[in-house]
Amino acid sequence: MPEHWFTEADPFSPVNYRYAVTRVLHERRSAIQEIKVLEHSFFGRMLVLDDVVQLTERDEFLYHEMLAHVPMHSHAAPERVLVIGGGDGGTLRECLKHSPVKSATLVDIDPEVSEVSRQFFPRLAVSFADRRSALKPGDGAAFLRETREKFDVILVDAPDPVGPARTLTTPEFYRSAHAALNEGGVFAMQTESLHFHLEFIQHVQGTLRGIFPQVALYAAPLATYAGNWWTFSIAAKGDLSGEPVRPAHVPAVYYSADAHRKAFVPDAVVQSLARHYAPFPARYTPPAR
Amino acid sequence: MPEHWFTEADPFSPVNYRYAVTRVLHERRSAIQEIKVLEHSFFGRMLVLDDVVQLTERDEFLYHEMLAHVPMHSHAAPERVLVIGGGDGGTLRECLKHSPVKSATLVDIDPEVSEVSRQFFPRLAVSFADRRSALKPGDGAAFLRETREKFDVILVDAPDPVGPARTLTTPEFYRSAHAALNEGGVFAMQTESLHFHLEFIQHVQGTLRGIFPQVALYAAPLATYAGNWWTFSIAAKGDLSGEPVRPAHVPAVYYSADAHRKAFVPDAVVQSLARHYAPFPARYTPPAR
Repeated sequence: MPEHWFTEADPFSPVNYRYAVTRVLHERRSAIQEIKVLEHSFFGRMLVLDDVVQLTERDEFLYHEMLAHVPMHSHAAPERVLVIGGGDGGTLRECLKHSPVKSATLVDIDPEVSEVSRQFFPRLAVSFADRRSALKPGDGAAFLRETREKFDVILVDAPDPVGPARTLTTPEFYRSAHAALNEGGVFAMQTESLHFHLEFIQHVQGTLRGIFPQVALYAAPLATYAGNWWTFSIAAKGDLSGEPVRPAHVPAVYYSADAHRKAFVPDAVVQSLARHYAPFPARYTPPAR
Repeated sequence: MPEHWFTEADPFSPVNYRYAVTRVLHERRSAIQEIKVLEHSFFGRMLVLDDVVQLTERDEFLYHEMLAHVPMHSHAAPERVLVIGGGDGGTLRECLKHSPVKSATLVDIDPEVSEVSRQFFPRLAVSFADRRSALKPGDGAAFLRETREKFDVILVDAPDPVGPARTLTTPEFYRSAHAALNEGGVFAMQTESLHFHLEFIQHVQGTLRGIFPQVALYAAPLATYAGNWWTFSIAAKGDLSGEPVRPAHVPAVYYSADAHRKAFVPDAVVQSLARHYAPFPARYTPPAR
């Protein structure tokens, strides 16, 4: 018997996911958001921010591997890495699997997410103990504007571009990221679903193309986020071949050189989807509750 | 304002999808199942069987294209095609785009699904008017057991393997399909999600390997079915290269020669997923309501 039914409240999604929760393991309100840890008989522990599931123990590997390893393997020698958001530690964990990495900085606006992760998601928070890691609480956009550090890879692991993550999808933010990257640097961020958020994806891709010489889109079939055909926008100061530029030998459940190559979504597919979806509403308007 | 919230009741899924329905366009109980047509502001019309969404106007193309075009393009000259299930007509529509097709037979256990499709989904039911089509109401397993006809391609477009579709996942059924295929014939069926139903996929793949000389798995990122990393099992009496064997020029939103090649899931991925998921429950047990 479930303790209760938990229904996501995601204004960015035209379908709400409902889970039979067996136990509420933790609940708190930070300065930024409501944080919950729920237990599910199939998914294991689930991290929930403002009533949207961010990850489950069962399938977090796919999102974190694909967000980290495609850009990390698109750089010949990523020594200095910055993760913005991703306070749970999962993306950081994947970055640290790359032997060239000398420092990996995590800037999340809500340090309480990392606290909760330490307590409830040790397989993700393991990355915090790595001597190469540095956790810096703060707004990622402000950090990038002000920092004099330079990075080889910058990854944005943010929730939907509503609420606290809104500052991470502006042209100013992308320009700060470009400025904070070394020559040959690579930038990547999650950019929502090809099924549900095509307009948003095209907007981000267009903005990035105005700032970076090389921009591409890749995708992975996630279970946890509604829309599921999840995209990542990648931009590079140097070349972006769609191939791993180093041997792709990091330990991973899904990621491989083959997965890397297959993930890239040709422009022709995006354009065909845009034509098909044109008669339908471009974005979902949730009903008044 | 939604007319009501519709929540799926899918015992095969660890997450239930909830939709804000703007209008109930149709509701009936056939001899087989409850059939509903719901209207949604983002997805358009949705066909619902026994309270599980089978397709939406917005994204039905992806499922139907991938179920039909990969096997159809794995056959050099598919003249005689059989679709089992798929009473909505979407899979039939995609098959009929292939110029070698001389006859396409649809056997669905519930003829009322085709009636509802004629009335509410004209873009799918258009296939019924093609002079090459023949609709035969009946149980697909019984049809295959008894028929003396031979086919080049057999596609199974069935709901979850619970309820009426249970007879379509037995070894006897696959043996009947093998027997009803001409030399070089190709068989394909939807086999649920790599995230949620790995045990079922491995079971079907193993059973097919005992009957067909060539068996493979391919996948597509569907939005409508929970689990979303949706698989199709394909089996052939002849060669199965993972490449289209004819020029892949059918009009399609997503399908292409590139999509065909990329869709195949290597055995190594299935094995890696199985290792990762081993500590978790293999299947979901829904709570008592």
